Amino acid sequence: MTIDYAGEVLQGSPRAVARVISWLENENERARPCMGRLYPHTGKAYIVGITGSPGTGKSTLTDKLTRHIRAKGLTVGIIAVDPSSPFTGGAVLGDRIRMSEIAQDPGVFIRSMATRGFLGGLSQSTGKVVNVLDASGKDVIIIETVGVGQDEVEIMRIADTTCLVLAPGLGDAIQSMKAGVMEIADIYVINKSDRQGADQLFVEVSHRVNQDDLIRAKSRDRSWIPLVVQAAAVNDVGVTDILDAVLSHQSHLKKDGTFVEKRRERTQQQTLQMIHYEIFSLLRKHLSESGKMEQLVDAIMNHEQDPYSVVQQVLSEWIRVPEE
Amino acid sequence: MTIDYAGEVLQGSPRAVARVISWLENENERARPCMGRLYPHTGKAYIVGITGSPGTGKSTLTDKLTRHIRAKGLTVGIIAVDPSSPFTGGAVLGDRIRMSEIAQDPGVFIRSMATRGFLGGLSQSTGKVVNVLDASGKDVIIIETVGVGQDEVEIMRIADTTCLVLAPGLGDAIQSMKAGVMEIADIYVINKSDRQGADQLFVEVSHRVNQDDLIRAKSRDRSWIPLVVQAAAVNDVGVTDILDAVLSHQSHLKKDGTFVEKRRERTQQQTLQMIHYEIFSLLRKHLSESGKMEQLVDAIMNHEQDPYSVVQQVLSEWIRVPEE
Repeated sequence: MTIDYAGEVLQGSPRAVARVISWLENENERARPCMGRLYPHTGKAYIVGITGSPGTGKSTLTDKLTRHIRAKGLTVGIIAVDPSSPFTGGAVLGDRIRMSEIAQDPGVFIRSMATRGFLGGLSQSTGKVVNVLDASGKDVIIIETVGVGQDEVEIMRIADTTCLVLAPGLGDAIQSMKAGVMEIADIYVINKSDRQGADQLFVEVSHRVNQDDLIRAKSRDRSWIPLVVQAAAVNDVGVTDILDAVLSHQSHLKKDGTFVEKRRERTQQQTLQMIHYEIFSLLRKHLSESGKMEQLVDAIMNHEQDPYSVVQQVLSEWIRVPEE
Repeated sequence: MTIDYAGEVLQGSPRAVARVISWLENENERARPCMGRLYPHTGKAYIVGITGSPGTGKSTLTDKLTRHIRAKGLTVGIIAVDPSSPFTGGAVLGDRIRMSEIAQDPGVFIRSMATRGFLGGLSQSTGKVVNVLDASGKDVIIIETVGVGQDEVEIMRIADTTCLVLAPGLGDAIQSMKAGVMEIADIYVINKSDRQGADQLFVEVSHRVNQDDLIRAKSRDRSWIPLVVQAAAVNDVGVTDILDAVLSHQSHLKKDGTFVEKRRERTQQQTLQMIHYEIFSLLRKHLSESGKMEQLVDAIMNHEQDPYSVVQQVLSEWIRVPEE
C-alpha cells in the first residue's frame, strides 16, 4: 500500500510532516514531487523569526509565546535552527522546548535543524520546512535561530516579522547594533527585564532605534519604526506585549502593501536559491563521480592550470545560457 | 600608462595588494586575469586561523603573535574577517590592530573583511585574499574571525593550524564544546589566564581534549591531539608558547603527509566554491536582466506554476551534461 504523504500533510498529519521534512534533510528524491503538490497550499501561515545570542532566553520566549498563540486557538509550527553545530549535526536548540508541555500539544509541531551540506544552504532548507508546515495548516510558524552571523540573517529574511532578543549582562548588545545585526529586527525584545542593567539596555536600544537614521535607512521596511518591548519570559511577563507587537507589525505590513512585496521577494529568493542549488548539486555529483574533479585538482596542485581557468572551463562545458 | 598590478603584487607592493583585494571585494572583472597570474606563486605561506567569541582577546593575541613572528624575521599578512556585519559592510575586527604599532611595520599587511554578496561566500573571498597575500610573499598569514557559526568553520578550514581562543567568565566555553565548534581547533588558547576561573577552564578543556573520543574522532586530523595553552596576551604572557604550539603542529603536519593532503582538500573545496559562485552570478545576472525572473515569480505567485517545476524548467534550459 502506498501512502499518499502529500495528501496526509495537507490533512495535518504530524507523522507525514515529519517524514517529508526528513526527505528534505536527506535530499531524498521523493521530496520533490511532494513539495510540488504542497506548494499551491502554502502562503497562509504567518511567519515569526526569533533570533539572539546564546543566553538571551530565546527558547523560553518561544515556549511562552507559543502558549499565548495557542490560547487564541491558533496552531503553531516551531523550527529551531542551529547553524553553530556543523560537525555534530545535532541541534542543541529545540531540546528545551521539546521537553516542555507544549511538545505534548497536538496543535504544536516542533522540529530542530542543524547545518548540513557543503555550502550552508540552511536558509533554503528552512524555507522548505516552512512550506511543509504552512501546507499542513499551521497558522503561525516560529523560526528560532541562535547568533548573529550571515546564516541567521538569511534565515530571518524568511520571516514576516523578526524579533531580536537581547538581555542585560551579556555585553554584546551594543556590539550587535554596531555590527549591523540590529537592522534585521522589526521588534526588539529586552528579555530578563528583572535583571540588573535591563532598564539601561532598554533605554539604550530605544534611543538607537528612534535616533539612528542608519538603522532605519537600511532596514527592510523604511516606514516601520521598530518596537522595543521589555519582557521576563521565564515569568511570563511581557509576552502578551510581544504578541501585540507582532500583530501590530503584521497589520502595518498588510496595510501598506509591504506584505505582498515581501512575500514576492522571498519567492524570488527561494526560487533562485533552488535553481542554483540544483545546478551545483548536479555539477558536483558529475564532477566527483566521473573522476573529473580529481583530475582538475591534480592539474591545479601541479601548477599546470590555475583554478580560475579551471572554473571557466567547467562553466563553458556545462552551462548554456539560453537565447531569448 | 598601464600599471602591471599582478607584477607589483609579486614584488610585494602593499598598494597593489590593496588594489587587487578591492577588485575581489567589488567583483571587478580585472580581478580574474590578475588572480590567474598570481596563483602559480601561491602555496608558500603558512596559514594560521584564530577564532573565538567576542571578548576573548583575539585581536590582542593576533597583535602580540605578529610581533613575535616579526621578531623571527618573517613577514605577516593579517585578514580580520567579521561575518556578523552583513548590512553595514564595515568590519569591526581589525580596527584595534590597525591602531597598534604593527600597522606601521612594512613587513605587516592588515586587511578587514565583512560579509558581502547574496550567498555568503565569505570563506571564498577569504581564500582569494589569502592567495593574494601569499603571492605577495608574506611568510605567515593570520586569519582572525569572530564567533562560532558555519561561516567561521568554513573560514577556518582554509587555515593550516587553527587556534580557538577561550577566556574565563564568558560562560560559553563548554557550550562551544557541545556545539561541536571545538572540533575545528588544533590549539586551544586559554587567554586572560590571570583572571578568576582561568585555571578551572584550563583543566576542563584539557580534560575534554584528552578524554573526549568524540572530539578526536571527528577532528580533521586524528593523529594530532590538540594542545591547550595558557596565555595572558595583553601582558605578552604565553604568546611564545602559542607560537611554539603552532610550529609543533606545523612539523606534525609535514611529517605525516597531512599537510599536502589538507592543501589538496582546500584546493578542491576552493575550486568547487568558485564554480558554485560563478554559476550563481551568471544565473542571477541573466535571469534578472532578461526579465525572466520576474515572469517566473509571477507564475509562482499566481499559483500557475510551483517553484519545483520552475527549477526543473530552468535546469533543462541551462544545463548541458558533457559526454565523457
